[in-house]
Parts: sequence; structure tokens; C-alpha cells
Amino acid sequence: MRIAVDAMGGDNAPKAIVEGVLLAHQEFPDIEFQLYGKETEIRRYLNGEINIRVIHTDEKINSDDEPVKAIRRKKQASMVLAAQAVKNGEADAIFSAGNTGALLAAGLFIVGRIKGIERPGLLSTMPVIGSETGFDMLDLGANAENKPEHLVQYGILGSFYAANVRGITKPRVGLLNNGTEASKGSELTKKAFELLSQETSIHFVGNVEARDILTGVADVVVTDGFTGNAVLKSIEGTALNIVNLLKTSILDSGVKGKIGALLLKDALKNLKNEMDYAKYGGAVLFGLKAPVVKTHGSTGPEAVAATIRQIHTMLETQVVDKLVKQFEENSPE
Amino acid sequence: MRIAVDAMGGDNAPKAIVEGVLLAHQEFPDIEFQLYGKETEIRRYLNGEINIRVIHTDEKINSDDEPVKAIRRKKQASMVLAAQAVKNGEADAIFSAGNTGALLAAGLFIVGRIKGIERPGLLSTMPVIGSETGFDMLDLGANAENKPEHLVQYGILGSFYAANVRGITKPRVGLLNNGTEASKGSELTKKAFELLSQETSIHFVGNVEARDILTGVADVVVTDGFTGNAVLKSIEGTALNIVNLLKTSILDSGVKGKIGALLLKDALKNLKNEMDYAKYGGAVLFGLKAPVVKTHGSTGPEAVAATIRQIHTMLETQVVDKLVKQFEENSPE
Repeated sequence: MRIAVDAMGGDNAPKAIVEGVLLAHQEFPDIEFQLYGKETEIRRYLNGEINIRVIHTDEKINSDDEPVKAIRRKKQASMVLAAQAVKNGEADAIFSAGNTGALLAAGLFIVGRIKGIERPGLLSTMPVIGSETGFDMLDLGANAENKPEHLVQYGILGSFYAANVRGITKPRVGLLNNGTEASKGSELTKKAFELLSQETSIHFVGNVEARDILTGVADVVVTDGFTGNAVLKSIEGTALNIVNLLKTSILDSGVKGKIGALLLKDALKNLKNEMDYAKYGGAVLFGLKAPVVKTHGSTGPEAVAATIRQIHTMLETQVVDKLVKQFEENSPE
Repeated sequence: MRIAVDAMGGDNAPKAIVEGVLLAHQEFPDIEFQLYGKETEIRRYLNGEINIRVIHTDEKINSDDEPVKAIRRKKQASMVLAAQAVKNGEADAIFSAGNTGALLAAGLFIVGRIKGIERPGLLSTMPVIGSETGFDMLDLGANAENKPEHLVQYGILGSFYAANVRGITKPRVGLLNNGTEASKGSELTKKAFELLSQETSIHFVGNVEARDILTGVADVVVTDGFTGNAVLKSIEGTALNIVNLLKTSILDSGVKGKIGALLLKDALKNLKNEMDYAKYGGAVLFGLKAPVVKTHGSTGPEAVAATIRQIHTMLETQVVDKLVKQFEENSPE
């Protein structure tokens, strides 16, 4: 399997990206890496490793570039070349820690949608607190608006992902709503509830509330991109703020507090580990002809390696090919 | 000032409600309380206090009653009688810890909307982490759907609340969106952004993201009821799960961890206090002819007293009368 890597995307590029790729290279000798970016900079971190291909380019997309414009104008950008390699059949998947909007645009306009899938959704595996497993949620913001039919497709997409990549048997699909009763919600969720109930290819378990998703009420949570984005950012913001507050409180509580924190080190480490969803990999723009996967811009080498592990699983299980088959069979000519 | 209290609403009613009222009675001798519910049960917790009126009724609305039906059929329910007292001018505000949907219905159908306000919104003051202040957010779920014009009204409503009840000068109003750029969002938020920018009576500061609201980027955050409900529940769920996880981690980490927790007691207490938004009072269905205020069903006496303190401030500052004046002046005949 061949993975095209945008080596120049993210706050710590190319260092963190290249170091992550080296970690993954150790773990998965079967992956052929193609690193797109400034060759001299990339080579500096490759430690003389010659089995990793570097494709030089001077151009890159910045975090503040306007996504669609950047993709269209910066034809030689590392991200664009990586996406182009996938389109041309020279690579099987693309990885980037760069501009999210630009990667979504590159995925849609260069890699392309699977026939029959109207609106690919951004999917992430989020942690279920107190459990080793997680849940998949989509759309996390690839779309600002969705129709009920899209939410049904997200149920199917999420089920394929949970079953193949995470090995969940008969994944439970929940619809994010403002109450658990069938009658609850907006016009969008009411109609989506009806359609999801009729969809026989998935195991729909009804409405779920944002309060309960972190406790594992569903393996797959579907929602429109606007709400999904708000929920994801609320969870991230709350967790980050609590952890920061705890740190400040400990620092402000004098020697006693610092000794306490030292004794609690394992418990606090456990907390951090449970909340860390980078361990599940990155966010997938799911519904495209190949895996297009994004991690946080501030990501370190371990998270890069975790994301490549995720891409490896996606390629190994052929989840995208299975999706293509499912949707081509069911879509009208 | 006279406050009608639904003494039978909530998991710990009437005990927690009556005990909370007694606390508030000590603090605010100027409040005339009217307690609606089972007289013998209420009197049991009143400790012989005779300056609090009790209006007996056997009927009450349960947490699983269908809201609108319950309000229409249970004419003698404690919540309905309390709302009726406000409507008839016998009380100035209503407090309940009961069925949220039923209280919203009682507010809309019995107390009634202020002329010119299309869709009253559910408003709560949420904590800004690391600060004594908070921010007001609405709509938290009174409506499953909203139009751009409603979000502008929420900006005005929230500004009046923040200025009068919390004493914020020129409150900064933010629109919850999936990015901070003006061009971001759904059809709803794009149009709302445009209208909010033109609204001269408020201090609109643009789009805010869910990740940042807990750090105080705005004093008032406006959003549609569906998103607001999801964000509120995400914040609550994340905070609750982290605190539970921390507890479990401490219990599982043996003697060392328990000593650590003991030494960290102040820091953990500080954390709990910062996250506790019951200290700001309850949720207000704002835009009605009188304060209609709800606390969590599982609330204890202190939170009941805090909510009555909030109602006291609302009545003292005459924030509802000011709203009536503002909207009557600006609404067409």
C-alpha cells in the first residue's frame, strides 16, 4: 500500500510529520511512503532513511489560505500533488496535518466522491469515557448544511467504518437529537429519524443526546455538519478548559497541592489518556474514492504515526472499496 | 415582590424546594412567597414558618407527562396554578424545578409572550473558566428551529439580561458559528450575521466558536435552539464525565492516590466550584411578560436559593418591564 504524505502541513511540519512517518515505517514495512515537500528540509529529519520516497516541491498551502482558491491556484503545493497522486492511481491514500478546508476541497475536487454519495462527511472516532472503545461521529463540519438523506448516508458510512476499521459487530447507529423520543427535534432530524428507521442495512437505535454520547450510547452518531462541528468543539473546549483549570488550581495550592499532584500522577495521566482521541487517529473525509485523512495541525510524531496506523487499517480492510461496491449497486444509473 | 413557587416540581420536591425557599426567605425578607402544592407535605419542611403562604393543591405535573397536554388537562397542577397566579397579577414571577417542557408551555400559553417577541428563548448563565463572571447563552432549546430574525431578538434579549441582571456594561454579543470569519456558516447563521451587524442597539462582536465560549470571548452567545441545546448538553456531559473519571482514577490508584486527592482537596473543590453554573441561578424562558425560571430537577436547597436570588435581581432591576418597553416601542401595531 502506498500513502501520499503532505509533509509540509501543520504547525510542526515537516519535523513532526517526518518523525511520525519514520515511526510508522518501523511498524509497517509494507507501506510505501511518498513525502511531498521541500526535499532538503524533509531529508534533514529522515536520518538517512533511503527507503522513503521524497517528491520535491517548493510550494505549500498555508493555514490561512482560502481553501478552494488555494487548491485551484497552488497547483504545485505539497497537498495538491499528494491528492493528485491518489487521483492518478500512484498512491492509495493521502495524509495531511495542514489546512482542513483545503484538504476537504482537495478531497472533493481532486480525489472525488464515491458515486452515489452526495455529501462526504468528516468522521472522527471520539473517546467513550472509562472504556477502551470509542464512537464514530459524522459529519463534524465538512458541510454547513445537510438534508435528511445525507444523514442516512452518514449512518451507512459510519457503520462501514465502525465495522471494518474498529471491528464492531453490528454497530449501533444513533441520531443526535435534542431528546430521545421519536417525536423530538427539528424538521431535519424528524425526517432523518423516519428515513433511518426504514434503512434496513444498518442497526439504528434511535435518537441520542449530546450529554450521553461520551458514555457510549451508540457506536456511530450521525448529525448535520453544523451541529457536529459545534458538539466536537464544545467537547474539546470543555475538556481543555477543565484540564487547564485543574493545572492552575494545583499550581495555586502551594506545596501541599504539588505533593498531592505528584501522588495523583497516575490518575491524572489516566485522565489525559482517556480524553486523548488522537490515539484513534485523525479525521477522515469519508465517502471519497480513497482515504483522505487529517490530523490536528499541532500534532506530534506519535499522533502522526497513530493516523498512519488508521490509514493502514482502512487500506487493509478495503473499507473504501466495500463502500464503492455498496453505493454503486444501490445507486441508479 | 411576589414569587409563585411550584413546590412539587423536581426529584427532591417538596423538601429541597421548601428548604431553598426558607434560605431565600432569610436573605430576602422583601419577597412574598406563594408555595403551590400539597399543604401537609410542604408544612412539614417549613419549620413552623408562618410568613410563607401555602396554596394547597393535590394535582401535579410529572417529569414524564407530555408537556402541552399536561398544561391543558391538569388545570389544578401546582405549576399551572403558579403560572395562573402570574397571569392574574397575583404574583410577579414563577419558579419551578419540574418538567421543563411543561414549564415552557405554561410560560408561553399562560404567562404569555411580550408583544413583538416572536420566539422567547431559554437563557442560562454559564461559567467562564478561571473567572468569576460568566456568559449568557440562548436559545438553549425552547425552540427546535429558529429564523435569523429570532437570533437578532436573542441578541437584544441577552444584552438586556447581561446588562441588568449581571451588571455588564455594553455586553459583547457573539453569534455561535462553525468559524469566526463572516463568510462562515449555514444559511441561518450567514443571514443572522448580516442582521446582527446592522442592529445598532447591541454590541455585536461577530462569530464565536463553541471551543472558545467557555473562555469568555463574548458576554452573550446567541444560537438556534437545536444547536444551543446540543452545545449545552455537550458541555455538561463532558464536564460530568471528566469529573467522574477523575474520581474513579483516584479510587483505583490506591493509598497513594487517596492521599494525593486529600492534599489536592482545595484544588478539586475549586474545580467543582468553577464548573458549577447553578451558582448563577436557573434557566430563564426570556421574552415572556414575567420571569419564568427553571432549575435542574435534581437540584438541592442552595441551588433553589441561588435561583430565587436571580429572580429577585430580575424583579429588582425590572429587566422584563424594560424589555416590554423596548419591544412595544419598536413593534408595528
